[in-house]
Amino acid sequence: MSYLTNEKVTVLGAAGAIGSNLAQTLVASGTASQVCMYDPFAQGLEGAAEELYHCGFPDADITWSADIAESLSGSSYVITSGGAPRKEGMTREDLRRDNAEIAKQLGIDIKENCPDAKFVIVIFNPADITGLTTLVHSGLPSTRVSTLAALDSTRLQSALAQHFGILQSKVTGCRTYGGHGEQMAVFQGGIQIDGVGLSDALGGQEVNGKGMSEDEWKDIQEKVTQGGTRIIQLRGRSSFQSPSQQSVFMLRGVLGEPYEWPSGCYLNGDGFEKIMMAMPARLSDAGAEWSLPEGSDTDIAALRSSYDHLVALRDQTIGDGILPPLSEWSIVNPNL
Amino acid sequence: MSYLTNEKVTVLGAAGAIGSNLAQTLVASGTASQVCMYDPFAQGLEGAAEELYHCGFPDADITWSADIAESLSGSSYVITSGGAPRKEGMTREDLRRDNAEIAKQLGIDIKENCPDAKFVIVIFNPADITGLTTLVHSGLPSTRVSTLAALDSTRLQSALAQHFGILQSKVTGCRTYGGHGEQMAVFQGGIQIDGVGLSDALGGQEVNGKGMSEDEWKDIQEKVTQGGTRIIQLRGRSSFQSPSQQSVFMLRGVLGEPYEWPSGCYLNGDGFEKIMMAMPARLSDAGAEWSLPEGSDTDIAALRSSYDHLVALRDQTIGDGILPPLSEWSIVNPNL
Repeated sequence: MSYLTNEKVTVLGAAGAIGSNLAQTLVASGTASQVCMYDPFAQGLEGAAEELYHCGFPDADITWSADIAESLSGSSYVITSGGAPRKEGMTREDLRRDNAEIAKQLGIDIKENCPDAKFVIVIFNPADITGLTTLVHSGLPSTRVSTLAALDSTRLQSALAQHFGILQSKVTGCRTYGGHGEQMAVFQGGIQIDGVGLSDALGGQEVNGKGMSEDEWKDIQEKVTQGGTRIIQLRGRSSFQSPSQQSVFMLRGVLGEPYEWPSGCYLNGDGFEKIMMAMPARLSDAGAEWSLPEGSDTDIAALRSSYDHLVALRDQTIGDGILPPLSEWSIVNPNL
Repeated sequence: MSYLTNEKVTVLGAAGAIGSNLAQTLVASGTASQVCMYDPFAQGLEGAAEELYHCGFPDADITWSADIAESLSGSSYVITSGGAPRKEGMTREDLRRDNAEIAKQLGIDIKENCPDAKFVIVIFNPADITGLTTLVHSGLPSTRVSTLAALDSTRLQSALAQHFGILQSKVTGCRTYGGHGEQMAVFQGGIQIDGVGLSDALGGQEVNGKGMSEDEWKDIQEKVTQGGTRIIQLRGRSSFQSPSQQSVFMLRGVLGEPYEWPSGCYLNGDGFEKIMMAMPARLSDAGAEWSLPEGSDTDIAALRSSYDHLVALRDQTIGDGILPPLSEWSIVNPNL
């Protein structure tokens, strides 16, 4: 069996639902042959690793370790879902602080054990903040750390396809930028539904015998921002297959395949200062390189507003002492 | 994205852990583009389908339905993990009867809705009996219904690789035949550990600086027969990734890729009468075609003993009225 890379890929949080799916999908899709599974929960980790051994993947080199140094050492690629989940009675704010602490330690661990890592994908929420915190403490160049940012866009694509009763791939140009969560900026320009522009559809043009009102479009946007919550309602657990799968697609992008979705990128310029958020990005062996999205004035205003929200979260994380003051970032990470 | 088949593949039990992993893996590995997910638990099914929509698979046509006729209609391939799990206080015997009933209904549903199905893979336990029951009631030719039978062999391969500290792929020729479960026949002949025959290893030849005693070999065989139980102990849940993955490998075998592991086959000849069990099998567009395994007298005796055990289970299922008397099988299924 051939794989896109035989270099070491470390999956953090590999005893969990996302991480164990990730390890399987990396190998099963021919993406990576050498996967190291890490989790502090050694027993569940061994169980997840055993499952993969029972898959009998040809030519795969799957290892597991509950030691973070061993797991990261020599690793070219790191994908991490290893944050804490939100627990009963915990606010979003508590989650940010706890997971930013985990991200800080991850950055330090990367700096110590795999300072030449080519690409790090951070999945755990709030990803914009955990990704940023990982980057700052890792010392890596800014293009080498990214966050999973595609799911809002694929949820939008899927919701539009379901509304019109057409194949999902026939809906193109769905892009949400800025922060992940309710403050995301859903870009309307560029969306095509089986070749019909969204504005034309909203203007009365039917697709597959169906029209769409402004109210229905608002509902769909609302559905997208609540996409993760909907999964929890339906399945009784949070998403794990889609975060895993899209992270594998991101890695494939870095390994040379086309990747069409937004990625979390570090921005410091063009009116965005020291922030990580979903942007149009080209993935390649150089990592994730962002560009400014094209959009209407409304789209761009939404992006600015989403940015402002992230700046507040970033500054709270600085206030917590988890991120250094902005003036010290280039000392902690000379690449920034 | 290209797929090995664009024909309809129906996954039964798709709201569950195995089934939802199956649907994802079928598409993610480029095996099938058209996947219909069925489960009687509609809410969880919708959640699992939504997760796959959020993956944004290019050119995939993923549908879901809680209606069995709609799900099977027009289906070329069926993979089912849709049995009942063993519950607290339930004996293995209770499980057999309940799941054989489910398998009978599945056979009837296949006969009504997709009588031209090319290949059906039955995963749920006891697979030898549920697969057999599905076959008899489906009316399909015997090569068109198979059961997942690889996991005992991949567990053996993995256990030997771990013992010698070598890559799993360097252990070849691991084969367990006959029934799945504690009555399986572990074939010793043909096993090579990095090029060293198992008997040579047992005779004192070291591999990677390690030897293996007869007691250690017995422990490994014991570990293999308890492989599924071990996963439950470690993960707190039964295997789902490896059954899913190996079923996808089986389908890929039918679609033209090499498949090296045993498959569940219907036998009626060579001293085996009207039974389904793990055998050496060639997978192709003709389905699963079995051949007699080569082995030592001990190996063959173990296979006969495993067969006798399955005959008893089959006869109990006839006694329950779930399978017809042997003399009526060719009436229920003229292909047998």
